[in-house]
Amino acid sequence: MRKKNGDLSGETLQSGAMYGGAIYSGAIYSDESPIAAFATVPGNSALSVIRCSGKGAVEMAALVFSAPERLKNTQGNTVIHGWITTNGEKIDEALVSVFRAPKSYTGEDSLDISCHGGAVTGKAVMNALKTTGFRDALPGEFTFRAFMNGKLDLTRSESVMELVAAKTDISRRHAIMRLSGSLYTEIDEIKKLIVQVLSGAEIYLDYSEDEISANFDTSASEEIAGRLPNKETALIALERLKKLQTSWQIERVYQEGVTVVIAGRPNVGKSSIFNSFLKEDRSIVTEIPGTTRDWIEAWVNIEGIPVRLVDTAGLRDTYDSVEKIGVERSLKILQEADIVLYLIDGEQGITAEDIEFMKRGEKHIFAWNKADISPVVSLPAEIADNVISISAKTGEGLNDLYTAIISAIMPESVSESMFGETVISVGTVRQKRLVDAACSSLEEALSLAENEEPLDLIAPLLREAVNALGEITGEISTADILEEMFSRFCVGK
Amino acid sequence: MRKKNGDLSGETLQSGAMYGGAIYSGAIYSDESPIAAFATVPGNSALSVIRCSGKGAVEMAALVFSAPERLKNTQGNTVIHGWITTNGEKIDEALVSVFRAPKSYTGEDSLDISCHGGAVTGKAVMNALKTTGFRDALPGEFTFRAFMNGKLDLTRSESVMELVAAKTDISRRHAIMRLSGSLYTEIDEIKKLIVQVLSGAEIYLDYSEDEISANFDTSASEEIAGRLPNKETALIALERLKKLQTSWQIERVYQEGVTVVIAGRPNVGKSSIFNSFLKEDRSIVTEIPGTTRDWIEAWVNIEGIPVRLVDTAGLRDTYDSVEKIGVERSLKILQEADIVLYLIDGEQGITAEDIEFMKRGEKHIFAWNKADISPVVSLPAEIADNVISISAKTGEGLNDLYTAIISAIMPESVSESMFGETVISVGTVRQKRLVDAACSSLEEALSLAENEEPLDLIAPLLREAVNALGEITGEISTADILEEMFSRFCVGK
Repeated sequence: MRKKNGDLSGETLQSGAMYGGAIYSGAIYSDESPIAAFATVPGNSALSVIRCSGKGAVEMAALVFSAPERLKNTQGNTVIHGWITTNGEKIDEALVSVFRAPKSYTGEDSLDISCHGGAVTGKAVMNALKTTGFRDALPGEFTFRAFMNGKLDLTRSESVMELVAAKTDISRRHAIMRLSGSLYTEIDEIKKLIVQVLSGAEIYLDYSEDEISANFDTSASEEIAGRLPNKETALIALERLKKLQTSWQIERVYQEGVTVVIAGRPNVGKSSIFNSFLKEDRSIVTEIPGTTRDWIEAWVNIEGIPVRLVDTAGLRDTYDSVEKIGVERSLKILQEADIVLYLIDGEQGITAEDIEFMKRGEKHIFAWNKADISPVVSLPAEIADNVISISAKTGEGLNDLYTAIISAIMPESVSESMFGETVISVGTVRQKRLVDAACSSLEEALSLAENEEPLDLIAPLLREAVNALGEITGEISTADILEEMFSRFCVGK
Repeated sequence: MRKKNGDLSGETLQSGAMYGGAIYSGAIYSDESPIAAFATVPGNSALSVIRCSGKGAVEMAALVFSAPERLKNTQGNTVIHGWITTNGEKIDEALVSVFRAPKSYTGEDSLDISCHGGAVTGKAVMNALKTTGFRDALPGEFTFRAFMNGKLDLTRSESVMELVAAKTDISRRHAIMRLSGSLYTEIDEIKKLIVQVLSGAEIYLDYSEDEISANFDTSASEEIAGRLPNKETALIALERLKKLQTSWQIERVYQEGVTVVIAGRPNVGKSSIFNSFLKEDRSIVTEIPGTTRDWIEAWVNIEGIPVRLVDTAGLRDTYDSVEKIGVERSLKILQEADIVLYLIDGEQGITAEDIEFMKRGEKHIFAWNKADISPVVSLPAEIADNVISISAKTGEGLNDLYTAIISAIMPESVSESMFGETVISVGTVRQKRLVDAACSSLEEALSLAENEEPLDLIAPLLREAVNALGEITGEISTADILEEMFSRFCVGK
């Protein structure tokens, strides 16, 4: 099989990664042995899907299939019905989808075995498969094989996990764009620009000064000393790289979300506000009380941004309580917060305690609750400007609150135009670091060029930038980079 | 399409069933409109599968598929690759398996759409499908359609849910046997036996006494008065029905499991015993502390029986505590218990408190813990016989404990021979009730026959038995029975 990606000749990837409690110390990423893993979450569902792939996978699965010959002779992209059996005992009824190399996700012969759901049945099928020689797939091993067989570059490989992890529709859209190749294309184009600059520089490096005088016209000879040819091209590349850098600031917020902690004195309406956020059907996951924690939290969706909203109502109040543990917990949650939404009781007005809290905050948003019965009273100007008037009861002012939260979340460097859903963005820390590396190499090269330093100092920097971009897509890769990357995938992907 | 099963002409099934928080008040079971549902649990998995079925389902799905014509022309049992799209926007990359009526689970045109996993992506695909006119499937609606289209009888339909719900490998095996038709065949055979008896009786009912004298020989005329022909056949049928009745007692234990609560004074080693059970890899689900409960529980597998093991260690001890809530909770858990495993501290010996507890118990198993350091001392005979000597530390006596638990769990009427894995058993309360009904009708018929009552009193009872058995397999069914049954399925099945 032709391997388009990677260059692991002779090297094997030893995976000691821990995933789901299991340690995969024996298996290695770079063999072609048949692997199997659940591609779905075991649970009270109609189906479980077990994914199998590798050399001879179809023949091996046939050993535990009720119609082995039929399975072995099945063409690619075909579904057949039968029973998984061992020693004549029926384990489960199943639909088996067969894929033939190279027309499969991994590029190898593969099967998707669709069996009944539940806690036990899928496991029994998996055990049957293992008796034939399938081994547990390592995390991300299917996608690893897809990459090695040239089915996906690294940006697309990573987007597969981003899709699975997406918390809101906007993060899904960004991941789908990358899966469609948007980031790959952008990186590739930027790389070509830099390669163009680099090859322009290298032409001069290949000649002695005399040869250049003899071979090039006078206008070109002006550039000999140290002037970088195609400097404008380099600047365009730099600008596009900088856009990608900024894109990560937004992407990260969409992917990871932010923590907003609702604080305030007792009975100020913290739980009511919490519920107002949830009520508007913004709830992503109704994840409720921790077992060892005594606050309530839920993920809500504010304009596509996943917000982990924490209601501290269950907590003993920081100021009221003398109990050490309560205070510690409160402080811990407040430290975790990206934003603290501090509620003031409109009925009672601002208390000394409120003022003390307001003095601290950098990342605070202040809201005057119960505005329906007690409108904001005259406040000191420096406070009034920063207080949002709301009512959890009537819903008044909640939209202003969302807007305030979004402004507080988004980095100041991000212009409004970058919120668009069609902006090409980097999707992982790995990609971001390599974009940073490319960016700083290119900037250094340009700064040397500015000072008319010799091209033989500039060219290596340009090459560094090109290599960093090549690493993003996986044109250049090493065993340990790939292992590190794929071991963070989920099993079955 | 020929409908083999059910007879719902003119009648519709109005489902008001609540499932997963949603009320399906509008939709009805008995139409053929295209339906869609998740067949897998949404979560952090590689794949989600959405199942679609109904008249025109393939054409409708094509409206949101990147290669609509190719999808529409796809033959059955074929997988095609493409993108789910709406208004030109890519929603997700997907593999679509196409099934053509009648060669599908439901017997209708169907699709399994395998898209990326995660919380958001599957939902987006589902939303896209709904824009084309798919509606949410009702609970069990796919299997309902399979039944209506003669793909499955009712015992097989129910076994599908039993499979998904199976907690241990033995319950899976029993369900698979029923899915393979074991119960259907048994019921059908018993029914044929009773029909044979019934038709034997009806021959006589069709003739006047004079006609019988004229048409039958003398030996036959002896049976005229009231003697039931083929009484032996009826007795064989009865015996087989009674076996099925008993089978439910075992089946129920395997399906639903039992609750074993570990009790005992503080520091007697409750948690150690709890952990010993889990350590031996008997753990089915590591389901840990309730949020509002303060005990620990886990499902463990004891010889194929799912045991919900509850460690009350976290509870304030009933006797020590004056706090009302602690006492109430302890009592509540003890009441839920099928078996209370009461530990005695071997080091301390039996205390007054232990004796008080021992006096109460019907469903108690007593174990003398820490036997490794303090062997059982001389105990009153009536107690000693019932105390099992164990050590959580060394593992001594744990097997005896398992055996004691199993003996205590299994109904006394169940002979050891019935533990076998190949015994045909009923799988649901519905089936059991109908077996009971058939059984008591048949018994009554036989008792009348014993008293030489007229055949025209006996025949209707035999018919009742036949009808009850016909209801089990679904040969005879009514809209409300079916609705009640299928609405307890999970969505997507």
